Amino acid sequence: MIYLDNSATTPLTLAVKEAMIGAMDVFGNPSSLHSAGLEAEKLVRKAREQVYQALSIRNPDGYRIFFTASGSEANNQILFGTVSAKNYRTPPRIITTSSEHPSIAEPLAVLEKRGIEVVRLSTARGEIDLDELKRAMTPNTVLLSIMTVNNETGAVYDIKRIFSLAKRINPSVITHTDCVQGFMKLPFSPETCFCDAVSLSAHKIGGPKGVGALVLAKPLLTAKRVSPLIYGGGQESGMRSGTENTVGIVGFGAAAEESAKRLTAFCEAMPRLRESFLNALPDSVRVNTPVRYAPHIISLTLPRLRSETVLHFLSAKGIFVSSGSACASNKKGSNYVLPAFGLTDAEADTTIRVSLGHATTEEELLVTAAAITEAIDTLIRS
Amino acid sequence: MIYLDNSATTPLTLAVKEAMIGAMDVFGNPSSLHSAGLEAEKLVRKAREQVYQALSIRNPDGYRIFFTASGSEANNQILFGTVSAKNYRTPPRIITTSSEHPSIAEPLAVLEKRGIEVVRLSTARGEIDLDELKRAMTPNTVLLSIMTVNNETGAVYDIKRIFSLAKRINPSVITHTDCVQGFMKLPFSPETCFCDAVSLSAHKIGGPKGVGALVLAKPLLTAKRVSPLIYGGGQESGMRSGTENTVGIVGFGAAAEESAKRLTAFCEAMPRLRESFLNALPDSVRVNTPVRYAPHIISLTLPRLRSETVLHFLSAKGIFVSSGSACASNKKGSNYVLPAFGLTDAEADTTIRVSLGHATTEEELLVTAAAITEAIDTLIRS
Repeated sequence: MIYLDNSATTPLTLAVKEAMIGAMDVFGNPSSLHSAGLEAEKLVRKAREQVYQALSIRNPDGYRIFFTASGSEANNQILFGTVSAKNYRTPPRIITTSSEHPSIAEPLAVLEKRGIEVVRLSTARGEIDLDELKRAMTPNTVLLSIMTVNNETGAVYDIKRIFSLAKRINPSVITHTDCVQGFMKLPFSPETCFCDAVSLSAHKIGGPKGVGALVLAKPLLTAKRVSPLIYGGGQESGMRSGTENTVGIVGFGAAAEESAKRLTAFCEAMPRLRESFLNALPDSVRVNTPVRYAPHIISLTLPRLRSETVLHFLSAKGIFVSSGSACASNKKGSNYVLPAFGLTDAEADTTIRVSLGHATTEEELLVTAAAITEAIDTLIRS
Repeated sequence: MIYLDNSATTPLTLAVKEAMIGAMDVFGNPSSLHSAGLEAEKLVRKAREQVYQALSIRNPDGYRIFFTASGSEANNQILFGTVSAKNYRTPPRIITTSSEHPSIAEPLAVLEKRGIEVVRLSTARGEIDLDELKRAMTPNTVLLSIMTVNNETGAVYDIKRIFSLAKRINPSVITHTDCVQGFMKLPFSPETCFCDAVSLSAHKIGGPKGVGALVLAKPLLTAKRVSPLIYGGGQESGMRSGTENTVGIVGFGAAAEESAKRLTAFCEAMPRLRESFLNALPDSVRVNTPVRYAPHIISLTLPRLRSETVLHFLSAKGIFVSSGSACASNKKGSNYVLPAFGLTDAEADTTIRVSLGHATTEEELLVTAAAITEAIDTLIRS
């Protein structure tokens, strides 16, 4: 098997599996007061520390990590939670981009129907126009949500510059980044990029599915700027109720610690691997290279070959890539990211995403390039 | 260790652990179209079928199961989701009880602030007054949410009678039960008790923490009566976005199948175990027995001994019980269930909960009764 769909999900690493299996025997409820509960609570605390460390935050008290069941839940919480935390006199405005993950785009569509102003900045060639942002930053702007790395094109938005500009115009705007595709793929710390809130997911970095986190800057909490999405027993300091997914959280912590250790090596390896792969592709394949990009996500537009056809051709050979993001691939008419990048609908239909992981080898990529070449040669003729 | 806090959480059974460990190697994203994704999707489908079977629903197409991250999330979704699914001309009313879990009580407090009418039926001695319900059932009543088994007292509410009466008065009212403490503890099927929506949790039946389900009757879905709480990639038929917690869901399925098999034996064993235990307690301990009760949850009011003191005394001996529910035990001033049952605040402060599991033995209960006796004898004198 050659797995090149690492931006959809990643295999559990051995260290993560071992950590999770170990945690299976610590079965207490972290909220219980007896020692069985305390032991479980200790595991959750350790994982929280591991994720905190992986975020390279210098101030040990600058942010708080709230575990969720997914990056999607974290994204939903920052959007719905910001709007419902306050009684706004004038309808608040949220600024985002035209290329966000559905777990940002869909809640915003719901909020728009409820009267919230939503402005979507253009992202042609993976770039955000700072002048467009400046014009959009009205006094009623409460939240700016821009992803760190685009899941379909690999575009890296310059959130440091964007958030810094936004904060200069309106210091009280909440800056949020969906960092699901950026975390542990490139150096990132919310502290250095004027970022108040971050969404994370475990299963993109070798951890389990069903675990994510919302990271919030302390001042947001003090000022009660974000409401919970799930109310109840008061777990996660009241910000996210529901008994903690101990085994999954332990897996997230282990994955964060492990991938933080190999981040430098990962960042060094990816550009080389990408180059070898692109060099081995036929000229008829167009690479959709954003202005700034994360090398582990590669978007390819193929000549006259529907992405689904190629996906199945490769899948039959044990090579796994994707057409768009996994989250969007099940839904019709949901591909808005590639058109926003600048592709026609027809081009978007013939585009595949190849996403590399820490275990990806050059040989795997060369085999894949050969298989794509074969697909073009055989399927187009037929 | 003698673990008698099974209503807070349960250990993973061997079968559940094995199922989860097996699922760890099926790492595809259930939403991906390639075969790695399909394999993961198959696991989720099997688990959904296992939970469906455990609910003893005869109509194979009568209900749909949506996996969530907790019973709390399921409870939040039915409440917020019912209110936001429609534009109500007059403020809608929700009827509930005074003894629901915080994941029902807290969201309702939030909704009340937003103008929703909330009526809380009294639950003295664990009983609901049908005349009170009749009076509360106004035409604007959209939802009736009553738990199956109370988590602190073991009271079994007669939801079949209650829901049937409510449906006769207003056929369009949505009937919901938080069945977290009832599922696999007593025979239950939503089909036989006029129930449209059910909340479930895996970790109370030998499954993992971090997995729950909202079960919805098909007509509710057709009529779009319940909105999602988390929007995004469209997982769970669009009702609950976020990449599926495959490993956890597989554990839930295995736990449901296993506990369904032993349900009859469980129901036979519990009354005997309860009786042995109660017989071994000193006369100074008062048993708070609801009018109708599930025998595996036992509420005891101790003479002049704060529950926390006893809890720590027992914990030091390796015996784990709780004071109130785990979800409430961390929060001050959150004990409203015991007063609603009829206890004074002082009595509530000296009350402990002993909750039995399928693996509980008579010997463990006798040792515990002796330890409680010792606590009373030694701690009160000192």
